[in-house]
Amino acid sequence: MTTKNNTLFSRRDLLTLIGKTAGGGAMYQAMTSLGFAAESNYNGPPKLDGAKKGASVLVLGAGLAGMAAALELRNAGYSVKVLEFSNRAGGRCWTLRGGDTFTELGGAVQQCGFAKGEYFNPGPWRIPYHHHAVLGYCKRLGVALEPFVQVNYNALVHSSKAYGGKPQRYRHVQADYQGYVAELLGKATTQGNLDAALTKEDKEKLLEGLRRWGALDTQFRYLEGTVSSDRRGYEVDAGGGLMPLAKPSKPLDMSELLQSNLWRYIASGQDYEFQSAIFQPVGGMDMIAKAFQKEVGSLIRYGAKVTKIEQNDRGVTVTYTDASKGGAVTQAKADWCLCTIPLSVLSQIDIQVGSAMQEAINAVPYGASVKVGLQFKRRFWEEDEHIYGGISYTDLPISRISYPSTRYGAKGKSVVLGAYVFDGPNSYEFTAMAPEERVRRAVEFGTQLHPQYASEFDNGISVGWHRVPGTHGCYGIWTDETRQKHYKNLCQVDGRIALAGEHASYIPAWQEGALLSSLDAIQRLHARAVA
Amino acid sequence: MTTKNNTLFSRRDLLTLIGKTAGGGAMYQAMTSLGFAAESNYNGPPKLDGAKKGASVLVLGAGLAGMAAALELRNAGYSVKVLEFSNRAGGRCWTLRGGDTFTELGGAVQQCGFAKGEYFNPGPWRIPYHHHAVLGYCKRLGVALEPFVQVNYNALVHSSKAYGGKPQRYRHVQADYQGYVAELLGKATTQGNLDAALTKEDKEKLLEGLRRWGALDTQFRYLEGTVSSDRRGYEVDAGGGLMPLAKPSKPLDMSELLQSNLWRYIASGQDYEFQSAIFQPVGGMDMIAKAFQKEVGSLIRYGAKVTKIEQNDRGVTVTYTDASKGGAVTQAKADWCLCTIPLSVLSQIDIQVGSAMQEAINAVPYGASVKVGLQFKRRFWEEDEHIYGGISYTDLPISRISYPSTRYGAKGKSVVLGAYVFDGPNSYEFTAMAPEERVRRAVEFGTQLHPQYASEFDNGISVGWHRVPGTHGCYGIWTDETRQKHYKNLCQVDGRIALAGEHASYIPAWQEGALLSSLDAIQRLHARAVA
Repeated sequence: MTTKNNTLFSRRDLLTLIGKTAGGGAMYQAMTSLGFAAESNYNGPPKLDGAKKGASVLVLGAGLAGMAAALELRNAGYSVKVLEFSNRAGGRCWTLRGGDTFTELGGAVQQCGFAKGEYFNPGPWRIPYHHHAVLGYCKRLGVALEPFVQVNYNALVHSSKAYGGKPQRYRHVQADYQGYVAELLGKATTQGNLDAALTKEDKEKLLEGLRRWGALDTQFRYLEGTVSSDRRGYEVDAGGGLMPLAKPSKPLDMSELLQSNLWRYIASGQDYEFQSAIFQPVGGMDMIAKAFQKEVGSLIRYGAKVTKIEQNDRGVTVTYTDASKGGAVTQAKADWCLCTIPLSVLSQIDIQVGSAMQEAINAVPYGASVKVGLQFKRRFWEEDEHIYGGISYTDLPISRISYPSTRYGAKGKSVVLGAYVFDGPNSYEFTAMAPEERVRRAVEFGTQLHPQYASEFDNGISVGWHRVPGTHGCYGIWTDETRQKHYKNLCQVDGRIALAGEHASYIPAWQEGALLSSLDAIQRLHARAVA
Repeated sequence: MTTKNNTLFSRRDLLTLIGKTAGGGAMYQAMTSLGFAAESNYNGPPKLDGAKKGASVLVLGAGLAGMAAALELRNAGYSVKVLEFSNRAGGRCWTLRGGDTFTELGGAVQQCGFAKGEYFNPGPWRIPYHHHAVLGYCKRLGVALEPFVQVNYNALVHSSKAYGGKPQRYRHVQADYQGYVAELLGKATTQGNLDAALTKEDKEKLLEGLRRWGALDTQFRYLEGTVSSDRRGYEVDAGGGLMPLAKPSKPLDMSELLQSNLWRYIASGQDYEFQSAIFQPVGGMDMIAKAFQKEVGSLIRYGAKVTKIEQNDRGVTVTYTDASKGGAVTQAKADWCLCTIPLSVLSQIDIQVGSAMQEAINAVPYGASVKVGLQFKRRFWEEDEHIYGGISYTDLPISRISYPSTRYGAKGKSVVLGAYVFDGPNSYEFTAMAPEERVRRAVEFGTQLHPQYASEFDNGISVGWHRVPGTHGCYGIWTDETRQKHYKNLCQVDGRIALAGEHASYIPAWQEGALLSSLDAIQRLHARAVA
């Protein structure tokens, strides 16, 4: 793999060219415009020049952090070996398909009964447009991407305590909340309440904007009619020929809407993390893992359970049991070690590092989220309700239902994310259940949003992250306090050992954090190795 | 083709089943929830039972309206023949690809020089989730769909009169406008200015909502910091390991933002017509045309220029020149006629209908929009600026740049919609230009948003709809007045002739309007035929 990311180089070339051919004004224009792209800490694959001949690195863990390190270090000339606890590459970059077996801590075994082509991502499931490292590797390794529909205006928002438990349409809540906000602000503005905060000119522009943005009438009112219905949708849509005329829909009552709390769900698609464009790999998140595996799979030893990590001033020795040798205690040696084992597990392993790093390793608890994948006999959300991809939200423990952002309109069985339980008590309760009980509960709760569940449910599978062997949790939970006290100590190279993974990043729970942490760590390890 | 849309039937079944197995409460729940889907006038393919043996229909025009009619009437047992002016099926459902030739009115010829797999839709380019007829036919005819990225938070919004002509990020304008609106309303609310409009409880909920929705701090202020940056993005993003710490970005000045008018562009993704989920066919819009053509292509006679449409109480006679016979004047006869010829052309044809319909035919002017497709040497918008799909907006005549919502991350040449000129004066000016001049101007204007245009432009093609043979315009423009006076007269069956097309619908310029108008018209023709 010799592909190079030329982004920076090409940009510099381009700027020079523009400067030469179009003069300074265009040059400035170009720089400020292109400068938009400079927000990320990712600047393409690391430059690891001058590796010493024969220098070796032992990578612990074959998740994305471990495999990216293996790829870059191998390309830089290092002798690389990867030890992986499980019999699968990818770590939390993981997809379950029909025929897969999953045995969780506690021994419960699930056989995935999904139809051919259907899948469920128990771990990460989305790639924001600004996760440049993940996108960069996808491009470099040929992983095809498709849009993840984060916001679906026709999906549902549901509160068991509002509207008699009847789900509402996202578009109704979104349009009406924004409409009432605009109407109220229009009222305060026209009444002169904000004259201290706004100049006359700004007031005029604000009112002009509120009318369009809030779908208000000429009197700055949010009312039933075509203006609001062009936003929230119609009671009867416009048609063709002599079909019945369009009929505007009636906005929700303002007070009832405010008291419903359903407005909680309408800002998430505006969050930087979830803004459009946001992607998923075609065919499942583990297409990324498989692409890395294609590059470095030959370097990975599976079924290697690390029990001890030792170092001295000449190298690192890792002791592990080798499943392929009946669990025989084995040792691997290298000049350097990059350890990507989750802290939830690493804190239980004997590792020879200073007390600062050891304390950091012990300081980070892991999230307990639970996901449930549900297969239905048909895409009733598309066929009956015209919901194509996207997410419905609820205050029930399942928190949301995410419809497949792929193969729209396909006939036959289809899998949704039927629960993503991540608040404390509910996630612990779900983790404690037997897998089939989690599935049963997800179906039971989901029926409150989609009564079709009752007749269309086919089969399901559940993953409680505290019960996933080799991970023992979903992601490292940092607080401001633990960040301040331990983060740097966790990330510093300790002798010949460096740590990486989402836990060693400021982007916890995201693959981007794992990759950036890995790229940063190997650059510092490399600097030490060539010093 | 015997596929049947069973949606309604299945729903009824489901309701019965739920009623039987879960009792009345669940039944109500199911009905109200499923009832959401009832907004459309499309209820699946029309039921055209009992066609008389040997009855025949002549369809004029092989666009979507004509081909859908041909498909349904043929399936119902009618003898169907379609006359099409051009040598291509699809009408405005049209895609240009490398190797295609387009000769416009006036004689200018363009050869499309796009790379393999690249394309440009001169006409319709999006399918909203509530265009049930289009989606229904896509499903039935096996047309694969993919999401069209309508809103891209990382795309640009540009005013030549604001910020020194420097484009801004959509996410900055969106977050800051919403943030300032929330801050101002928070101020008015906490100051008690809205106590007459809000109860104490509603006031509390409103403030709670504004904080989250507007990304305000605990004092209801929209300020530089992590709260606003979690919405608008960071100056420096969070990283991994010991990378530089995240740095919040600074909101735009409120007054400058209000005066910029850039807030004009942030509501379009909330409009019912453009809300997510919104789709495009994989490979180009004309995949829909091709799918229809596969069904009814054998019924179509191409190169048939209709010159006269006559009827009496026994049938319809259509006179046309037949290009395949050297322009020989030919006649076709049938019991009934569905005419989907655009009114811009039909108003120039001798048609034997009553004066009410004739006046309606003459009453509708056609839009003059112009689209330009531009091929670049590489996807610089993705590679340099991390814009994946979506639309950048500008106050320049090109109005917008739409990036490809497909093959994200692909290497090599790529085509964008480089201009969609649809306001009056600009579209007439662009229509009047030679095709290559339109392309040159689109590149020139676009360079103000993307300086890379200068070095990356490869080739382009342009379509001015007033110059498209057989259409002479983009779509029928109705006013409230012309609707009231002429719409019903246009859509009534006149003797043995009915009209259809987007012009005979309340969804002008959309394929949904063409299909619904056609389905409605053939049902009324059929009712008359079996009476």
